[in-house]
Amino acid sequence: MPKYPLELVTLISFFKKLPGVGNKTAERFAFQLLNWQEAELKSFAETMGTLKEKIHHCSECGCLKEGAQCSFCDTDKRDTHILCIAASAKDVYAIEETKTFRGLYHVIGGLLSPLDGRTPDSLYLSGLKKRLTTLPIKEIIIAFDSTLEGDATALFLKEDLASMGLSVSRLAFGLPMGSSLDYVDGSTLARALTGRNSF
Amino acid sequence: MPKYPLELVTLISFFKKLPGVGNKTAERFAFQLLNWQEAELKSFAETMGTLKEKIHHCSECGCLKEGAQCSFCDTDKRDTHILCIAASAKDVYAIEETKTFRGLYHVIGGLLSPLDGRTPDSLYLSGLKKRLTTLPIKEIIIAFDSTLEGDATALFLKEDLASMGLSVSRLAFGLPMGSSLDYVDGSTLARALTGRNSF
Repeated sequence: MPKYPLELVTLISFFKKLPGVGNKTAERFAFQLLNWQEAELKSFAETMGTLKEKIHHCSECGCLKEGAQCSFCDTDKRDTHILCIAASAKDVYAIEETKTFRGLYHVIGGLLSPLDGRTPDSLYLSGLKKRLTTLPIKEIIIAFDSTLEGDATALFLKEDLASMGLSVSRLAFGLPMGSSLDYVDGSTLARALTGRNSF
Repeated sequence: MPKYPLELVTLISFFKKLPGVGNKTAERFAFQLLNWQEAELKSFAETMGTLKEKIHHCSECGCLKEGAQCSFCDTDKRDTHILCIAASAKDVYAIEETKTFRGLYHVIGGLLSPLDGRTPDSLYLSGLKKRLTTLPIKEIIIAFDSTLEGDATALFLKEDLASMGLSVSRLAFGLPMGSSLDYVDGSTLARALTGRNSF
């Protein structure tokens, strides 16, 4: 890296910690900020610095909450018989956006990946067990990525919850909407075939 | 966009102002920051907020400077007979990195683009004229992008400086180092042909 002023080097090193941001992109970001208005830059920094003070993970479900009350745990407005288990708080918003699920959520905070040190102990599972005994939940939907880690974690959870007599299902795998068979990869097509539905 | 907490929405809107960052990327950045350590996040915000207080554009050459003294204007260490005109402070670092130029720099702060409202008045040209009369400059190198804006600005400067009896040159155009003719576009190849050198 060229000999930029120290402050700029520090800022670039922070930007490089963001996902998918390399050296060149981080440099572009930092130099771009130099062209911003002072007030806007301060406001950006202020929002960033106070982020973790203003937004918390709900101690009950693990979703994000702004105030004291978690909108996802509101048992008056949500169906308490069905629980969706997600890996991250961000995934919950993606599911909410579909407007097809009105049950409760539980965020376990990641997926199993023993090589990266993410073992069952690092997931928020104790809270899950407690909720399953206190809430009248009858059905569980596992909403994980369709990756190796997602598969492993789903399998682990299924076995872990087997003794509780709950109906456990996982999101369907198959063709993405609007896709053409020409462009779909082989393993997706194979899953779509084995999971075919009568219609 | 899903109904994220307000603070997160604000943060995402700031990230979206960075070059090449769309909605999805901004969301990933913001959620990533939620996983950062509090101290690291504060430090990032602090660096960002104080950026413009600690780094200034030198009033003489337009390059970035940290302290009171601009390292690029140090006439004891640099060749004061040759001046390189760059569009942005970032380009200066790229040229410095080559370690093949030891002259002075002048940053005009952009390129001409009348459709975007960037006319000669918006460039830092008054300072350039003043420096050309006070410094013993004999040669000028124009180091602009090889774009339409770069060509237009270079032509404008060349005509503007014609009366001053200086030797004005522009960076060479041709094949990038290590490139194969197979992959070089036609206009680059055409410029490389017209600008061929005896060897």
